[in-house]
Amino acid sequence: MSASPIYLGVVGVGGVGTAFLSQLARLPNAPKLVLLARSSQTLLAPTPAYSPAIPAADWATAAAGPSLTKTGALPAEEIASYLASAPGRAILVDNTSDINLARQYPTFLKKGISIVTPNKKGFSDDLSLWKDIFASAAEGKALVYHESTVGAGLPVLSTLKDLVATGDEVTRIEGVFSGTLSFLFNTFAPASGSSDAKWSAVVAQAKELGYTEPDPRDDLNGMDVARKLTILARLAGLEVSSPDSFPIESLIPSELASLPSSADGIAEFMKRLPDFDAQMASIKDTAEKEGKVVRYVGSIDVAAKNVKVGLQTFEKDSAIAGLKGSDNIISFYTKRYGANPLIVQGAGAGGDVTAMGVSADLIKVVQRLQ
Amino acid sequence: MSASPIYLGVVGVGGVGTAFLSQLARLPNAPKLVLLARSSQTLLAPTPAYSPAIPAADWATAAAGPSLTKTGALPAEEIASYLASAPGRAILVDNTSDINLARQYPTFLKKGISIVTPNKKGFSDDLSLWKDIFASAAEGKALVYHESTVGAGLPVLSTLKDLVATGDEVTRIEGVFSGTLSFLFNTFAPASGSSDAKWSAVVAQAKELGYTEPDPRDDLNGMDVARKLTILARLAGLEVSSPDSFPIESLIPSELASLPSSADGIAEFMKRLPDFDAQMASIKDTAEKEGKVVRYVGSIDVAAKNVKVGLQTFEKDSAIAGLKGSDNIISFYTKRYGANPLIVQGAGAGGDVTAMGVSADLIKVVQRLQ
Repeated sequence: MSASPIYLGVVGVGGVGTAFLSQLARLPNAPKLVLLARSSQTLLAPTPAYSPAIPAADWATAAAGPSLTKTGALPAEEIASYLASAPGRAILVDNTSDINLARQYPTFLKKGISIVTPNKKGFSDDLSLWKDIFASAAEGKALVYHESTVGAGLPVLSTLKDLVATGDEVTRIEGVFSGTLSFLFNTFAPASGSSDAKWSAVVAQAKELGYTEPDPRDDLNGMDVARKLTILARLAGLEVSSPDSFPIESLIPSELASLPSSADGIAEFMKRLPDFDAQMASIKDTAEKEGKVVRYVGSIDVAAKNVKVGLQTFEKDSAIAGLKGSDNIISFYTKRYGANPLIVQGAGAGGDVTAMGVSADLIKVVQRLQ
Repeated sequence: MSASPIYLGVVGVGGVGTAFLSQLARLPNAPKLVLLARSSQTLLAPTPAYSPAIPAADWATAAAGPSLTKTGALPAEEIASYLASAPGRAILVDNTSDINLARQYPTFLKKGISIVTPNKKGFSDDLSLWKDIFASAAEGKALVYHESTVGAGLPVLSTLKDLVATGDEVTRIEGVFSGTLSFLFNTFAPASGSSDAKWSAVVAQAKELGYTEPDPRDDLNGMDVARKLTILARLAGLEVSSPDSFPIESLIPSELASLPSSADGIAEFMKRLPDFDAQMASIKDTAEKEGKVVRYVGSIDVAAKNVKVGLQTFEKDSAIAGLKGSDNIISFYTKRYGANPLIVQGAGAGGDVTAMGVSADLIKVVQRLQ
């Protein structure tokens, strides 16, 4: 717990990155920001002193001044070398969703650089990368914190890790892991009251509100949920080989799956989606007849080693059915918690709350490195 | 992050203490258990080597053998001196609910001994003790983790701390913080279906099931909830002077409050409680007429610096109304999370889940001390 300075490199200044930098600027005992990389430019505190640091709140102004070193985009290896040569422990915050940077985490970790990130890709790709990341962290005595890869700032991974580390037996994990799909089903098939909205109209509304990806099929294909489930299942002890190694129910009608992802393709998809409204209405009505509602969930049966992503029906008075807006909900069923699960619920997407998970992780890594 | 050994003293082998020791025995990288104190006896690893350690799973057998030092109950100062003289960093786990031991935390902390505890008393008593604890921790460069003081193993305090530390503005905290009162109201006034059970019958049922304290008035007076609210409010930045400095609605009819807490007094209380059933039925019916249910909640309005504990009504489709069994629920309303709060829900009492919060805290303290 000595108070040697800690050096910080940050990659990405998109929505999450910008929110993170504004939180970083207000953190007490923040590490020294010495590298800030965006796609076109990298700012660096000049070597060999790694000083002056980059002002987190005001990096754009500082970038225009003479005190910082500026280069174009740097390869990950060079970022790693720069941080590893800093006169103290270093941390990389990866605020991108770049699989290529994630593939380089082992390079950073072996050099003793800890990783904090909301980037799902590294933890939900091939199992070999997962293993390489944690073996490299052990080798480099570096830390890896990635709370925001599932549920953004919600305490999901930390809770699962605590359950496992203290010897509880996690039997089942179930939840709504996509804010977009949460909104779609809470609107299409509300648990209280009723809705006459057609499925295609709800998708169009979500698209207009900016709740979907530019191409709604990137939400409807279930891959984002599958990546989150992969991470949870691995933390629960299952060796999931990749996010396409278990059943994923896509909500994209197969007839529309091959439309191009161009603007024209997306427009065509939205135009033809109403042709499939009867199909979704029938799924909703079947659930309704049993007094239930349909939701798009991910679930992990730990004992049966069964992971799946898709539609399921729920009692109207269940916590999952009662979800509001675009909230996520995650239920942990464990031996100690018995019949009623431990539940975490709230916004699971958005720049500010995702950045909060990153900042909270950063605080914990700094506390452990000091 | 050097791996010097860490020395552990544990006080209390009641329900939580026993569950904790069984979890400790299975922790990887557990600190060395060198002191175990119960009311009548203290076991110590012999000085000066602080070895052999006490086997956590099998302390009772070891206590009967010759390898450990045995004494009667030791004053807190002597426990602190013993731990402070260990050849490495030390941690005290206080698994009691003893206010007197809690008042000695500053003695431990100033000597550099970290504290992990589910004991609410030290954090919910006079504000001067709270301040003394954290000032002493800073002085001794020691850590204080007390997750299980609110919501047992649920991630309540850690979530609040993360929200505050990353600069979110917590506007309101609201929830059901007592498993006993949760059960009483979920049974008396369920959100789905209906119940004809009289209030006194529900209290009697809870008492028979072991859900209440031996004297149910210790639950019905609201003080346990008030202590938890005091802790949350202080972590949210409010200088609450003591748990009786804000309104607490007691569910003990004033006519029965002065009955002695002897077995006879308790029996008399249970016998006369039905006289007040009409009063509780009227509260329930008034809520019902508005389509609502009544719940016993604690709430903190941070901006208005307003803390209160008592009965409130809730919409039937709200998360609080839909609570099951004896679960706790805690909602954090913050600027970043907007209209829908961040919610944590699940069992908030019981030896295993309380001990889980203690064990998880211990892991984090060990990680920071190493």
